[in-house]
Amino acid sequence: MAESDRAKLTDPFGVALDLEQGALAEVAEHLVRRASDMRGYYADEEALEELIREHDDPVHYEVFDTPVPKAAGHLKFCISKLQPGTVGDECFMTKGHYHELPGTAEVYLCLCGSGYMLMKADDGRCEAEQMHRGAVVYVPPHWAHRSVNTGHEPLVSFCVYAAEAGHNYGDIAQEGFPKRIFRRDGEVTIE
Amino acid sequence: MAESDRAKLTDPFGVALDLEQGALAEVAEHLVRRASDMRGYYADEEALEELIREHDDPVHYEVFDTPVPKAAGHLKFCISKLQPGTVGDECFMTKGHYHELPGTAEVYLCLCGSGYMLMKADDGRCEAEQMHRGAVVYVPPHWAHRSVNTGHEPLVSFCVYAAEAGHNYGDIAQEGFPKRIFRRDGEVTIE
Repeated sequence: MAESDRAKLTDPFGVALDLEQGALAEVAEHLVRRASDMRGYYADEEALEELIREHDDPVHYEVFDTPVPKAAGHLKFCISKLQPGTVGDECFMTKGHYHELPGTAEVYLCLCGSGYMLMKADDGRCEAEQMHRGAVVYVPPHWAHRSVNTGHEPLVSFCVYAAEAGHNYGDIAQEGFPKRIFRRDGEVTIE
Repeated sequence: MAESDRAKLTDPFGVALDLEQGALAEVAEHLVRRASDMRGYYADEEALEELIREHDDPVHYEVFDTPVPKAAGHLKFCISKLQPGTVGDECFMTKGHYHELPGTAEVYLCLCGSGYMLMKADDGRCEAEQMHRGAVVYVPPHWAHRSVNTGHEPLVSFCVYAAEAGHNYGDIAQEGFPKRIFRRDGEVTIE
């Protein structure tokens, strides 16, 4: 190993994860997205405003992060927790993102809840993989991805990606994904 | 995205993982290491030969792999399963490896069993992180790593690393790790 690499050697570490609830024993960063952060993402804008007003702008989803350097060769791991509910008939979802380094993958291991990982590629394809306890979803390089909670409890996943991947919301706020996921009378549909 | 990248676009996929036993519903490759593959790794060579002879060269550890391309930007995920037992007093362990691309990390999420992730850096440091159900161990870039099973059931982990990282056994067969882990009269020691 070169002297310059040796000087940058990161120490190993361990952290306990509750495999039933998905809680990390230590969290370095905690990102919170509230309903008001989701303006522009749902089909029914009025229903979102009502949710914000009547439920005091509730927490929509959270990311619990670990202290890994944002540098080449490192892997970030985190917990993503998306609340259950609908905006009109549309199931709660994350904003979704590409990676800033678009050619980097992400692995999701779902621990609780049920829903879909919705993914889109810029050749127009849109894929939905089911998420439920124990489902591992592989998001390949270049696919934008968004979690959608179709159930009645939080959708919680353990996620791993290149630490330098970054987030790029790109065209998502404007164009969304080619498909939306609804729950009407207890029936989930992808449209 | 460039046309050349678009042509290489990999499809997303999902696979079910049993979070209690660590079994993957679909496996692309299955690596099996038997006791005889471990010659040269344990302190007590005679005890290893006896194990091979008297137990018909038993399975020592296995890796269950998923169909991710071995290419830049992709992330490989797999299950590592290490049997319990001792060679003399030394706890069963994997060979351990550096990555061929040494500057790449690995994330281990332990699902069953108990033991340690033993790690060494080429500046002489050696670290042991405890593994038990729900323990996440971060192996930073440049650290060789080996699982050690100190318990009485298989030690099973879900592992994620850069798909192009590769394995390099380097100096491990000759020099081993600076520390070994023993179980004597039910007491585990790192020496």
